[in-house]
Amino acid sequence: MARFPFSAIVGQDEMKTALLIAAVEPAIGGVMVFGDRGTGKSTAARALAALLPPITVVEGCRFGCEPDQRGTCPDPCTSGRKAKQAVPFVDLPLGATEDRVIGALDLERALRAGEKSFEPGLLARAHRGFLYVDEINLLEDHLVDLLLDVAASGENLVEREGLSVRHRARFVLIGSGNPEEGELRPQLLDRFGLSVEVRTPESIPDRVEIMRRCSAQERDPEGFAGQWDAAEQKVLRQIARGQKKLPDMDVPDDVLHDAAELCAAVRADGLRGELTLMRAARALAALKGAKAVRREHLLEVAPMALRHRLRRDVLDETGSTARIERAMEELFE
Amino acid sequence: MARFPFSAIVGQDEMKTALLIAAVEPAIGGVMVFGDRGTGKSTAARALAALLPPITVVEGCRFGCEPDQRGTCPDPCTSGRKAKQAVPFVDLPLGATEDRVIGALDLERALRAGEKSFEPGLLARAHRGFLYVDEINLLEDHLVDLLLDVAASGENLVEREGLSVRHRARFVLIGSGNPEEGELRPQLLDRFGLSVEVRTPESIPDRVEIMRRCSAQERDPEGFAGQWDAAEQKVLRQIARGQKKLPDMDVPDDVLHDAAELCAAVRADGLRGELTLMRAARALAALKGAKAVRREHLLEVAPMALRHRLRRDVLDETGSTARIERAMEELFE
Amino acid sequence: MARFPFSAIVGQDEMKTALLIAAVEPAIGGVMVFGDRGTGKSTAARALAALLPPITVVEGCRFGCEPDQRGTCPDPCTSGRKAKQAVPFVDLPLGATEDRVIGALDLERALRAGEKSFEPGLLARAHRGFLYVDEINLLEDHLVDLLLDVAASGENLVEREGLSVRHRARFVLIGSGNPEEGELRPQLLDRFGLSVEVRTPESIPDRVEIMRRCSAQERDPEGFAGQWDAAEQKVLRQIARGQKKLPDMDVPDDVLHDAAELCAAVRADGLRGELTLMRAARALAALKGAKAVRREHLLEVAPMALRHRLRRDVLDETGSTARIERAMEELFE
Amino acid sequence: MARFPFSAIVGQDEMKTALLIAAVEPAIGGVMVFGDRGTGKSTAARALAALLPPITVVEGCRFGCEPDQRGTCPDPCTSGRKAKQAVPFVDLPLGATEDRVIGALDLERALRAGEKSFEPGLLARAHRGFLYVDEINLLEDHLVDLLLDVAASGENLVEREGLSVRHRARFVLIGSGNPEEGELRPQLLDRFGLSVEVRTPESIPDRVEIMRRCSAQERDPEGFAGQWDAAEQKVLRQIARGQKKLPDMDVPDDVLHDAAELCAAVRADGLRGELTLMRAARALAALKGAKAVRREHLLEVAPMALRHRLRRDVLDETGSTARIERAMEELFE
Amino acid sequence: MARFPFSAIVGQDEMKTALLIAAVEPAIGGVMVFGDRGTGKSTAARALAALLPPITVVEGCRFGCEPDQRGTCPDPCTSGRKAKQAVPFVDLPLGATEDRVIGALDLERALRAGEKSFEPGLLARAHRGFLYVDEINLLEDHLVDLLLDVAASGENLVEREGLSVRHRARFVLIGSGNPEEGELRPQLLDRFGLSVEVRTPESIPDRVEIMRRCSAQERDPEGFAGQWDAAEQKVLRQIARGQKKLPDMDVPDDVLHDAAELCAAVRADGLRGELTLMRAARALAALKGAKAVRREHLLEVAPMALRHRLRRDVLDETGSTARIERAMEELFE
Amino acid sequence: MARFPFSAIVGQDEMKTALLIAAVEPAIGGVMVFGDRGTGKSTAARALAALLPPITVVEGCRFGCEPDQRGTCPDPCTSGRKAKQAVPFVDLPLGATEDRVIGALDLERALRAGEKSFEPGLLARAHRGFLYVDEINLLEDHLVDLLLDVAASGENLVEREGLSVRHRARFVLIGSGNPEEGELRPQLLDRFGLSVEVRTPESIPDRVEIMRRCSAQERDPEGFAGQWDAAEQKVLRQIARGQKKLPDMDVPDDVLHDAAELCAAVRADGLRGELTLMRAARALAALKGAKAVRREHLLEVAPMALRHRLRRDVLDETGSTARIERAMEELFE
Repeated sequence: MARFPFSAIVGQDEMKTALLIAAVEPAIGGVMVFGDRGTGKSTAARALAALLPPITVVEGCRFGCEPDQRGTCPDPCTSGRKAKQAVPFVDLPLGATEDRVIGALDLERALRAGEKSFEPGLLARAHRGFLYVDEINLLEDHLVDLLLDVAASGENLVEREGLSVRHRARFVLIGSGNPEEGELRPQLLDRFGLSVEVRTPESIPDRVEIMRRCSAQERDPEGFAGQWDAAEQKVLRQIARGQKKLPDMDVPDDVLHDAAELCAAVRADGLRGELTLMRAARALAALKGAKAVRREHLLEVAPMALRHRLRRDVLDETGSTARIERAMEELFE
Repeated sequence: MARFPFSAIVGQDEMKTALLIAAVEPAIGGVMVFGDRGTGKSTAARALAALLPPITVVEGCRFGCEPDQRGTCPDPCTSGRKAKQAVPFVDLPLGATEDRVIGALDLERALRAGEKSFEPGLLARAHRGFLYVDEINLLEDHLVDLLLDVAASGENLVEREGLSVRHRARFVLIGSGNPEEGELRPQLLDRFGLSVEVRTPESIPDRVEIMRRCSAQERDPEGFAGQWDAAEQKVLRQIARGQKKLPDMDVPDDVLHDAAELCAAVRADGLRGELTLMRAARALAALKGAKAVRREHLLEVAPMALRHRLRRDVLDETGSTARIERAMEELFE
Repeated sequence: MARFPFSAIVGQDEMKTALLIAAVEPAIGGVMVFGDRGTGKSTAARALAALLPPITVVEGCRFGCEPDQRGTCPDPCTSGRKAKQAVPFVDLPLGATEDRVIGALDLERALRAGEKSFEPGLLARAHRGFLYVDEINLLEDHLVDLLLDVAASGENLVEREGLSVRHRARFVLIGSGNPEEGELRPQLLDRFGLSVEVRTPESIPDRVEIMRRCSAQERDPEGFAGQWDAAEQKVLRQIARGQKKLPDMDVPDDVLHDAAELCAAVRADGLRGELTLMRAARALAALKGAKAVRREHLLEVAPMALRHRLRRDVLDETGSTARIERAMEELFE
Repeated sequence: MARFPFSAIVGQDEMKTALLIAAVEPAIGGVMVFGDRGTGKSTAARALAALLPPITVVEGCRFGCEPDQRGTCPDPCTSGRKAKQAVPFVDLPLGATEDRVIGALDLERALRAGEKSFEPGLLARAHRGFLYVDEINLLEDHLVDLLLDVAASGENLVEREGLSVRHRARFVLIGSGNPEEGELRPQLLDRFGLSVEVRTPESIPDRVEIMRRCSAQERDPEGFAGQWDAAEQKVLRQIARGQKKLPDMDVPDDVLHDAAELCAAVRADGLRGELTLMRAARALAALKGAKAVRREHLLEVAPMALRHRLRRDVLDETGSTARIERAMEELFE
Repeated sequence: MARFPFSAIVGQDEMKTALLIAAVEPAIGGVMVFGDRGTGKSTAARALAALLPPITVVEGCRFGCEPDQRGTCPDPCTSGRKAKQAVPFVDLPLGATEDRVIGALDLERALRAGEKSFEPGLLARAHRGFLYVDEINLLEDHLVDLLLDVAASGENLVEREGLSVRHRARFVLIGSGNPEEGELRPQLLDRFGLSVEVRTPESIPDRVEIMRRCSAQERDPEGFAGQWDAAEQKVLRQIARGQKKLPDMDVPDDVLHDAAELCAAVRADGLRGELTLMRAARALAALKGAKAVRREHLLEVAPMALRHRLRRDVLDETGSTARIERAMEELFE
Repeated sequence: MARFPFSAIVGQDEMKTALLIAAVEPAIGGVMVFGDRGTGKSTAARALAALLPPITVVEGCRFGCEPDQRGTCPDPCTSGRKAKQAVPFVDLPLGATEDRVIGALDLERALRAGEKSFEPGLLARAHRGFLYVDEINLLEDHLVDLLLDVAASGENLVEREGLSVRHRARFVLIGSGNPEEGELRPQLLDRFGLSVEVRTPESIPDRVEIMRRCSAQERDPEGFAGQWDAAEQKVLRQIARGQKKLPDMDVPDDVLHDAAELCAAVRADGLRGELTLMRAARALAALKGAKAVRREHLLEVAPMALRHRLRRDVLDETGSTARIERAMEELFE
């Protein structure tokens, strides 16, 4: 089924910005999406994956390695022939076992040839792409933990059944959850880099527009894609510029000071808050083609970097987003 | 045992309409049937499956493929000879394992020949037919999730035990449940396309008529079938017309506007409500031979498309169906 | 150990009638026996099975097929020689696994010869006889469900471990339970055709008579059997007559009308109540050698056909049996 | 370790009588022993087993068959040589698996020779002896059920893993439990034939005597055994007489009438009460060398036959034993 | 790591006495140690094991048999050469499986040679030594039960996986537990022979002395051991004398009478209390070189023999030890 | 990824001292780190491991043995060639199985060659380094117990699956936990040698400094490491001096007396408190190059040695650290 174009999505601006930041800086550590059921939480992520240009891999490599990284791949990849492949978008099925996620002993070869061999899992397949976990709050804690570890380090280290395999697994982790259905433990939530909120649009014209675009796309997918092609190309150019600029992007001391003051003001636990804030601001500045990070970049990413790291304050019933916005106003305006 | 004719069923009009819509547009995403025990919830579905003309398959194909889709079938299907087969009606047994549902490694071949081969499951058998799950609220959530995924995408992607198989599985999913025995999570309910209510008939003449028809059918199944043959043919022609007309059926903007307003008025969560409403109205219009979708089509399918998507409103004790009907009156009359 | 003669059982009239109805019409769907512990709930059923004349089977057939149904048997049954065999009475042990009940892969042959072969289970062994489940309320729901499915359809369809076997399993399902020890879910109870109540006799002469007969039977089983031979033969002739008359037994419209009115009056859920009432009355009329079903047949079977299908009525504390009897008086007298 | 002589046990008269009855009539269906911890609940049973003369078996037979019953033994027992063996006393270990209790597939032979063979379990080993289950209330219900079934029928029918084996398993089942630690379900308790109560002796001289005998036995087991030899022989002769007289022991009608009245008076559920009462009185009369059963035999066994079958009477706080004794006084004195 | 000398332990007198009694009379049935965490509950037991002279075994015997008991050993032990070995001290790890404790089928030999062979477990390794179970209250009940059975009988009888092996397992069972962390069931507690209490010393000089000795031992283990050598030899001579005198140690009737009166006065359940009291007094008298057991021996062991066997008395809040001491004062002073 | 330099860590002084003590005296028994999420609890430990000079091992040895300890290694290590290797830092993954932690049967060799061989686990890999367990309060108790046992004894003794292997496993165990997420049982907490508290820094300049250093390190890891090289070397020299001085470090009696009084004053349970206090003070004195242990060393380590060993005092709400500090003031100032 043809995917919906990224630029044809109505609304969902915060979600789209977070995805672009993660595409530029995968080490940001995953995006958590909060929202009601049926709000298309996965649509933007799928659309972005489908939009990105195909990646170059070694033909037959089960780990999706970049051709110039054959040395570190567990597969010999002797052919060395290059091949093109779509950017992976892996949907972690509910009830997936740890085996299936991280990879396991290849039982067939073990039985047939009596030798241990590694069968890559979903983490290997997600390399250089996206790993989407719907209703991540229903996943067992230790699996979430594992996903976050790999997303943060970009590497999957497997130690089990006598196997010891290490392979690259650099992907954007996206988890979705409905806060009404039980939350992740704060311990885990804190380890997601960014979090965004997606809601059912309330404007009737928006809702009609969504139906109209869906109907058009269902009846003529190719024609619909053609209408949005120019917009898609523009997004691609923006990502490419961001990736190029990021390594040299400077964060001036006054912006660091702003970040520390904001985190202290909203009482974010620990240090992950300000470190993520710094990294997300750096990526946004790169996406926008800025020379250096400025306070405006910081303010734009603050809600998505801090919202899920606030302590419950029993005396202040205000929601997390509102508390961050109020603190920004008091401090910086 | 000979099936009861579809047209000989007394009452159950909403159920019959939903089944016809699903027969014309299987992507509608499943039908959830609510009702007391012993109300013949599965009777209409079984009857419809028995009524439909046999399908053409490739002889010996374990996936029931259409002969012109041999290319995408995991089986080689070298013979290529065509064969006829009844429309599948698969009854998912309580306690069925995930293996049995989605298919699994063929252990016999694995042991005997040392090679991995896929043994198709109930999803493959249901292809091009119906998958009925009685008391679906007793099934484990992740199985329901899986069934809904496959029903929506028309494809079963198996990733387990080192197998990676993809095959078509386009079927109408029908789940039944008694609301008194515990409900599905709203998250899952929302993913069913339509929902209908079946009740014990209260009129004595109807109940006598039901016993009379059952008694007649038990004593002389063939004679009974003969009496209803003309009515059955009429249903078949209606379905055929709907399938032909659907691809070009247009949904005018004012009908889309009606749909959005109705969903906003009843406060249906997310966007699945209006998208399903649009698709069901399109299918009903096709079944009825209309040129384009009209507001009357929308109104007829609204209860079955929205009933299971309403938020509980603690200030309004009215049932879901009544709330939808009241909203339709207020908006459109 | 020699069985106790059916006719030598003191009291238990409703139980005996239900068993005779089920012997004549096995499709009635099982008999549920409620009663205190130690009231000989299984005695009558065992006695009836021992009384029935031996059945003719194909020699060596593991499915107990009638010789003229060899075509549908999973065993080749090449010999074709006929043999006699006692009517099966299978006692389902508590804790029996699903494997053992429905049959399973014959592991020995699978390991030795590398081929899949089906090992019949208790359902195959019960074919053409009785399947007794003591304390059925302690069995897992999905097993009860399975037993009721097979009892209703007369066929066991096995789909597991890569096997797909279908064989006849036409038996009378008898479940017993003590209502003080937890009940079956209404959903399952409703699917039993009939239900009867067995109580400890309260009359001292009856109790002395029971001990006297047990003592006599324990000391001289053969002599005791001889005393009751004539009575046993009479029961056999009654069953034979019923089986012969059943297929042509008519149910007049006014009797159907009575059935519908009675079910509506006692507020039995669904339609199983009146359909069972109709079938049980038909079987009783056949047993009694009547020409057609009459209201008196309906009234005699009404308590056993409806007792377990009544909704709890919080305003009416009367027991189920009493409510049915009161409704019959008000409607028909 | 040398066993303590049966006759040297101080007190515990009811327990000793129950064991003698069970030794004479194993079909009585098991003895349940209630008592505080540390009261030597198993001592009398172990002592009786050690006292009984060795049994004659077929050499090498794994089922302990009587030599004249080789025909029904699952083992070929070709040698046919006779051998002597102590009366079995099997102590069912807590946590014993069903496999170990009823027997199972002999895996070694299955793997080595590829053929199914039956490995007898503890039930086979207990044949012709005693099976003792300490803290039977901690055993899983279905195992208790199984033990009671076999104890009652004298036969173990194994249906599992494709095996179908039937062998004799005639033994006295003895279960012990401390009522303070949770009880058996009434359903199971009722199926024990007899129940006895064992208490810590309260008289100081008795307690000193017990220590003195234990001390003497610990320091010189053989000398101690010699002192009690004559008393042991007397017990043996009594059992032999009982076994010989039992088959022809008559129960007059007036005694049956007494039994029925007593059971009705104490409101024992079901019929097992009076049937057990009749059988126990018959065995006691045989043990005592009486010509026929008399009321005095009935009265002596009534507490052990009925105590565990009484309904809780919320208006009568009197213990079970006291209620039986009061009923006997009112009826018969 | 060199063990701490038994005689260098500061305080813990009751624990040391109980261990000496158990060393002299292993059939006493185990020692339960109650105490706070970190009080060195296992130190004295380890020290005693390290102190005892090495035992003589058959070279290569996996069951640690005495050379003159080769006949009853499951191993052939053909060599027959004698060897010396330290007294075993086995520390049962939390989470040890039943297999590992009692022994199991030797899978390696089963797979390689297709024959069943027994792999001894921790019980075999503890033979002739000590088995220590820390936090025994966290062990599963059936394992505690098993340990107590073997400790009492001195024999391990294995019946599983088709194996039937019997070997000697005479050891001192020592269990420790913190009463604040949940207790053993009274049923199990009662089966321990003795119980002692170990507390954190409260005197500052004692605590300094403990640190000084630990520090000295850590810095120069050998020198430290040398300082305590004479004291250790004295303990060894005392044990040897006790073992020699025990078999002929007489318990006069008046001491037995004292024991019975004391047990009755403190309301110890069952008879294990006075039997243990008698045996412990006998062992203590032997250790002290007395000619016969005297009341003073009885009084010294009474708290450790009875403390864990008292019923909770809701009207008397006094602790167990205090109640025993009060009863001794009232009766004997 | 290059590690952060140990000396570049801002704050966390108590944590750093505890790590240096453990590096000098691994037998101290593990360090427990309490702290909020995101406070970099593992950063200092990782940094210290990366800082330490590489260790010398036998080439190919799977147990990381020192070359002069080949005799006690389970591997033959025939080559004997020496190799250099980084100090191990093992991160115990949540959900790690016992097998993986302690090592297990090498199944591949068992299947291929039919011989039992040991596959070392994470404990072997951590030998001579660090074992870090994040959120140790979520680990199963018996695993924590096992880790503490090995950390204390420096040896891993494996008894399972018929294997009996003993190898050195001397490492610093570091557990972290957030007290808000549930605590370890006091029983286990008490067995950790030291405990420290890590908090989010509250000073804005500190927070800016942390971001500045992280940013600098992310952009130029090598340059950043160069800036801190001198500071790192100084730490290395301090550790080396401590290790050399420790064996002869004396603890004068008056310091032991102080330790006993302090433990009594704060009511630390058991004796582990003062023994750890003595050992930690000895190690600190060695690190500081002192001639003997002085009271000041005792006072510096008292909070980390005693904080986790205090009884809850319901009358004194003061935190553990405050209570220790108050006691020190009252006693020693």
